[in-house]
Amino acid sequence: MPFVLTPLPGIPSIRAGDDLAGLALAGTARSGLRLEDGDILVIAQKVVSKVEGRIVDLASVHPSPEAKRLAVESLKDPRLVELILRESRVVLRVRPGVIVVEHRLGFVCANAGIDRSNIETPGGSESVLLLPEDPDASAEKIRQALQSATGANLGVLIIDSHGRAWRLGTVGAAIGLAGIPALVDLRGEMDLYGYRLESTVVAAADELASAASLVMGQAAEGLPFIHVRGFPYPLRDSKLQELIRPRELDLFR
Amino acid sequence: MPFVLTPLPGIPSIRAGDDLAGLALAGTARSGLRLEDGDILVIAQKVVSKVEGRIVDLASVHPSPEAKRLAVESLKDPRLVELILRESRVVLRVRPGVIVVEHRLGFVCANAGIDRSNIETPGGSESVLLLPEDPDASAEKIRQALQSATGANLGVLIIDSHGRAWRLGTVGAAIGLAGIPALVDLRGEMDLYGYRLESTVVAAADELASAASLVMGQAAEGLPFIHVRGFPYPLRDSKLQELIRPRELDLFR
Repeated sequence: MPFVLTPLPGIPSIRAGDDLAGLALAGTARSGLRLEDGDILVIAQKVVSKVEGRIVDLASVHPSPEAKRLAVESLKDPRLVELILRESRVVLRVRPGVIVVEHRLGFVCANAGIDRSNIETPGGSESVLLLPEDPDASAEKIRQALQSATGANLGVLIIDSHGRAWRLGTVGAAIGLAGIPALVDLRGEMDLYGYRLESTVVAAADELASAASLVMGQAAEGLPFIHVRGFPYPLRDSKLQELIRPRELDLFR
Repeated sequence: MPFVLTPLPGIPSIRAGDDLAGLALAGTARSGLRLEDGDILVIAQKVVSKVEGRIVDLASVHPSPEAKRLAVESLKDPRLVELILRESRVVLRVRPGVIVVEHRLGFVCANAGIDRSNIETPGGSESVLLLPEDPDASAEKIRQALQSATGANLGVLIIDSHGRAWRLGTVGAAIGLAGIPALVDLRGEMDLYGYRLESTVVAAADELASAASLVMGQAAEGLPFIHVRGFPYPLRDSKLQELIRPRELDLFR
């Protein structure tokens, strides 16, 4: 079966309180698609954060002395740095333009996933968008709504773009899952010649995130939903936490 | 346009000297597909290595004192460690089960990309498979053959599975490119609200590698070719090297 990712067209600009499941269903219908058993909806983090009101006006943020110190080191706005610190457990590296942190959600990322792009700024105020409070819960809520509306067994994946330690450019990464296997363990399986596969735990949710990110683009708030058919593994419940390398196995911090 | 990845069925077990372009064309025809302008063929590293005769009989390898020392530390076969060292520029970390290196091709990976799975072992000898000598050149050669046969403008991508510093599980990663943009730079573009995107260089080739890896599976030497239609960026020449983070920008080694 082919693996088919279709961006849903005609999605309006998203505002706090909007019904993402309803918008996705309408977009799916406009595309001539339906949500069927085994289908997945991939959603850009940005629209989930907006719906959940995770916009912060920088004028309301009072930076701590630590934020001011890191702002000098990173050449960033101290109010933005304050938010990065509030959203993080540990700061791993600071360089001009980037603060690499362990996010409170567990993963390592740049600037706690906070950016300024695609935020409406009425009256010229400066606002930024934080990641959702609990992306697994956000994904599950949308999944329940989609399943209720369609009667199908579905998956929902919320994605963001992450840099990598040793490679340039960003790739899509899973930040919230519902009904999708974070990891698929193939270690027990034999290959064609009867060897047991040695170290083959596949980060299926991240591979799906990268695939969807590719067609979502970056500038395109107009393409925040990707309909996926032909995901090659059975749907199952899992959590973002499955994808996080435990600190004691981390060789590079 | 949807983004469609189709594994080509019925590919026989690959041997040294086989014609990968011919096998891919036959597989494409069996699927009822054609290679058209803008289409991409993604190929598993393993079959490229086999065709190029990159199999090494461990009985022929004599480990150096350094390999013997690292073999104790990593709990690996000293002959395998010797090959890992020969294929690498620098050893970054050693732990039981894994040697993280900077490969001679430039990227950071575990065990220099050498594994034992899916290698035929006639007479009970132990063999392993090295990465292709020059995967960009391998991809370009296959691309030329496919373009000559079809008259279409095509891309070819050779992929492997890589671990990540902070996340569990492997994801598909580009190791050889022909006609595919390694990176796509969206930084000049405005988003919907007139903000310039801040740090949006997309590792498009790696996102494509992850998408294709997902449908290729791991145990499946039977699915080494993925036909891709609807890649959302224009094809252009680029090299693997574009994806490698320069050492001076590496914060984590």
